[in-house]
Amino acid sequence: MGSNHIISVLVENKSGVLAKIAGLFSRRGFNIESLAVGTTDDEKISRITLVVKAETHSIEQIVKQLHKLINVLKIQELDPSNIVERELVLIKVNSDNNTRAEILEIANIFRASIVDVAKKSLVIEITGTSRKVVGIEELLKPYGILELVRTGKIAIPRGSKR
Amino acid sequence: MGSNHIISVLVENKSGVLAKIAGLFSRRGFNIESLAVGTTDDEKISRITLVVKAETHSIEQIVKQLHKLINVLKIQELDPSNIVERELVLIKVNSDNNTRAEILEIANIFRASIVDVAKKSLVIEITGTSRKVVGIEELLKPYGILELVRTGKIAIPRGSKR
Repeated sequence: MGSNHIISVLVENKSGVLAKIAGLFSRRGFNIESLAVGTTDDEKISRITLVVKAETHSIEQIVKQLHKLINVLKIQELDPSNIVERELVLIKVNSDNNTRAEILEIANIFRASIVDVAKKSLVIEITGTSRKVVGIEELLKPYGILELVRTGKIAIPRGSKR
Repeated sequence: MGSNHIISVLVENKSGVLAKIAGLFSRRGFNIESLAVGTTDDEKISRITLVVKAETHSIEQIVKQLHKLINVLKIQELDPSNIVERELVLIKVNSDNNTRAEILEIANIFRASIVDVAKKSLVIEITGTSRKVVGIEELLKPYGILELVRTGKIAIPRGSKR
């Protein structure tokens, strides 16, 4: 089944570009594990960060196809050993007077923030690697996760050598 | 031109679903301002958070179209007055011995984290509302932004009444 690859694509911020790129991956049977799109420091240019599970040679082929699309400016496959990768997750979890303190303690351990407190729920914000996010998710599951929203992974090459 | 709408779509985590949804928006001439896709606490189900600028009646029409797509489980337009919204941004900025301390101070003010330090650059991680992200971006611009990657916005309804 291959392993996870992180592909970063710079595109012109125009209607239809994302649909073309998603369509290219879908027609070739790739499943997109996560995808995040946002503008860069130049609002006319967006960056799409994709995570796909595939064999290396399939990735090489789809990168070639991506280069042929108009509005695509630059494509990089990121080397996992030399990047900072992060994702952001919001988790709404069941919580009442009996469990609130325990949940706050879990959030503390993971340096997560509490961003909403209600009678029967808490919303927790956590940023980090996928492993960290999975860790807190496992500990919160027993309380009852009401909703979980994640951004998908973004990544940036390190300036420093590791 | 209408205003920004945040649409949250629960979908089955299958190849092609994202392409269909992005295609639907693109054929109708919507420009997607940001889009984030990731799995929920059930890995068979993904959530797509979209921000689009449009008139309210156009949004109502596209929501109807979305309902007709297979693999789409639930669609919500989120009420901006009753959500927690966040995005995550990684910024690589020029920095040397002369400017490092100043940049660290800016990061501190915004409660941003330094996630990579190199001779000629720093990578800063910041989480918050779009307004906060724009704020730090403006202050870092004079140093030279080498790369900026954002996840796009995610949001979750508050459990508390405001």
